[in-house]
Amino acid sequence: MTLGIVGGGQLARMLILAGARLGLRFKVYDPSPDACAGQLAPLTCGAFADANALMAFARDLDVLTFDFENVPASTLAALENQINIAPNPRALAMTQDRLSEKLAFAELKIPVAPYAAVATADELHAAIKRFGTPGILKTRTLGYDGKGQARILQPEDALHTWENLALAACVYESMVPFKRELSIVAVRAKNGEFCAYPLVQNIHADGILAVSIAPAPDATLLNELAIQYARQVAEAFDYVGTFALEFFELDGALVLNEMAPRVHNSGHWSIEGAECSQFENHVRAIAGLPLGSTNVRQPSIMLNWIGAMPALEPHLQVPGLAWHDYGKSAREGRKVGHATLCAADFAQLRASLQRLSKMCDTPTLQLALAAQW
Amino acid sequence: MTLGIVGGGQLARMLILAGARLGLRFKVYDPSPDACAGQLAPLTCGAFADANALMAFARDLDVLTFDFENVPASTLAALENQINIAPNPRALAMTQDRLSEKLAFAELKIPVAPYAAVATADELHAAIKRFGTPGILKTRTLGYDGKGQARILQPEDALHTWENLALAACVYESMVPFKRELSIVAVRAKNGEFCAYPLVQNIHADGILAVSIAPAPDATLLNELAIQYARQVAEAFDYVGTFALEFFELDGALVLNEMAPRVHNSGHWSIEGAECSQFENHVRAIAGLPLGSTNVRQPSIMLNWIGAMPALEPHLQVPGLAWHDYGKSAREGRKVGHATLCAADFAQLRASLQRLSKMCDTPTLQLALAAQW
Repeated sequence: MTLGIVGGGQLARMLILAGARLGLRFKVYDPSPDACAGQLAPLTCGAFADANALMAFARDLDVLTFDFENVPASTLAALENQINIAPNPRALAMTQDRLSEKLAFAELKIPVAPYAAVATADELHAAIKRFGTPGILKTRTLGYDGKGQARILQPEDALHTWENLALAACVYESMVPFKRELSIVAVRAKNGEFCAYPLVQNIHADGILAVSIAPAPDATLLNELAIQYARQVAEAFDYVGTFALEFFELDGALVLNEMAPRVHNSGHWSIEGAECSQFENHVRAIAGLPLGSTNVRQPSIMLNWIGAMPALEPHLQVPGLAWHDYGKSAREGRKVGHATLCAADFAQLRASLQRLSKMCDTPTLQLALAAQW
Repeated sequence: MTLGIVGGGQLARMLILAGARLGLRFKVYDPSPDACAGQLAPLTCGAFADANALMAFARDLDVLTFDFENVPASTLAALENQINIAPNPRALAMTQDRLSEKLAFAELKIPVAPYAAVATADELHAAIKRFGTPGILKTRTLGYDGKGQARILQPEDALHTWENLALAACVYESMVPFKRELSIVAVRAKNGEFCAYPLVQNIHADGILAVSIAPAPDATLLNELAIQYARQVAEAFDYVGTFALEFFELDGALVLNEMAPRVHNSGHWSIEGAECSQFENHVRAIAGLPLGSTNVRQPSIMLNWIGAMPALEPHLQVPGLAWHDYGKSAREGRKVGHATLCAADFAQLRASLQRLSKMCDTPTLQLALAAQW
């Protein structure tokens, strides 16, 4: 069986590493000839919007999937009748537009932050009047890793902030006074089988995920709620594959921020920390195989390497630390790798991180140590 | 850094899967255009004895290593001045000849089975007179997976048996009345750093490894001995990389049967069962990186799939079972994949195997269940 992946970044790379073990073959499609997944599978170069090139790429594949969710929905619609696509384009289209995403969540009665659509200056002012400041203005489409969004601290900054977002169609969201950020990674198979990893606690830096702690401490009750939400979303969209829901926790409740219709950075810990990783489970789901156990093998902490890889050698000397270098060149703000540390309990995890910080300190490690967990 | 692997089978494939996580790149050299490691890295086709083709392959590599130890030592000697080869050709040459291997072990005072070299019919008869029957006649070179060896049950079969081995230069070994077969996988780095996984218990079928149980039960004292032997061998040959020693256990002692100068089938469990796998540790060693922890994460059992892969779906439904399909076509006697099952203890491992046997019985699973562990 040959699987095609649209987008050849680190997510595609880790899907290939997981799927190869199952004897599956892969092909990758990406605009860049340097796409790092191309180091492990044949790479076809083409634009994401080029329906003809995508069609040619997909012709002999058993399934087409994504490591990048912003392939134009119209392009996918043109392919859908001829190619097995998972997750389905309807789910992708929903997550490509923050407004349709929020409407879908509301229909499922899943709480979201108070928001209003902003397409005109009048709507912007009305939204600010209604929800006050501070708040966050987010473009409806093409946002990820903190891109396409900006805080508005006082009403008189509103128009200027919107201009910086190119006056794109937006949503204005009330700032949620959250206690912490949590996410759940879940998987649904073709036959409806569903499973989920436990909630993890996330720490962001400049809008980019920096640290995930798995499982999130003190989240037993919230877990039930998150699983229920994830199941509802998956079933509503007949979703097949791995996806993530990002939440804010406040007052013992979960407010759904957004959905990622793909394997997710906050699930990387599962490669070492769970019995079957989010990557293997995505591959199993789209290949029509039984899903794997999401049981936690050991508490884990994932440290993201952003911009450049830190020194390798000190990290390799930490027992239980797994190193992931995506084979990408360094660039500011770019996710170039991560490390996952597993241990018998959180106390041992923290002790290992403290020892590591004496050998090789990094901003990510400082964030992890400063957080409560 | 780019690493070249001579031999493109499953061992190369698993080296690539482990090394890719470290951001390393790979190239593979194999006589067959279908070599399964070629699914994950560029493949150069050439004969193992073709020094010119090997030289061209190795020219731009940082290190050359092996998943197949029978590359002619003379070929390697020609490359050695120009290319960084690990493990070194001297160690490979020693293991390519059972006689030189036994002499090397004897020099290190490591016990081996009583044996005699056989190059003539007179020597054969003298050996049988000295050690009696039953015994095993093994060709000095090119033996693996039970090939190149045959039992001699009574003296009058001796000549015929030798003829079936093409009258090749052999050693005749006394049969050791062993309690069980054990092996140790160990790793040595360029700077002399050394580490070892615990002894594992192996079960063979028709001379091919079928099952490994890790760690071997009740082997605490033997472990110390095995580690000492492994360290002696590694230091004597200035060995760099992962290797295995296969032992017979009898009367609380270890008799060394043979050495594999490469990652080894009895170490496959370490991918899931240890903190750092034998594959990652080989890559770390030959790339000059610090070695990883050989700590056991969970007791593990490895089931080898020989000839053809068994049904996939029942196996994927077993929590804690990791599936490894090497992407090879089915062929009698060929290693095409394996599965590793991890659990909190041996009782749970056995219970899982028993449940599995009701869903999908295999000869390998029967062997595992019939064994004492």
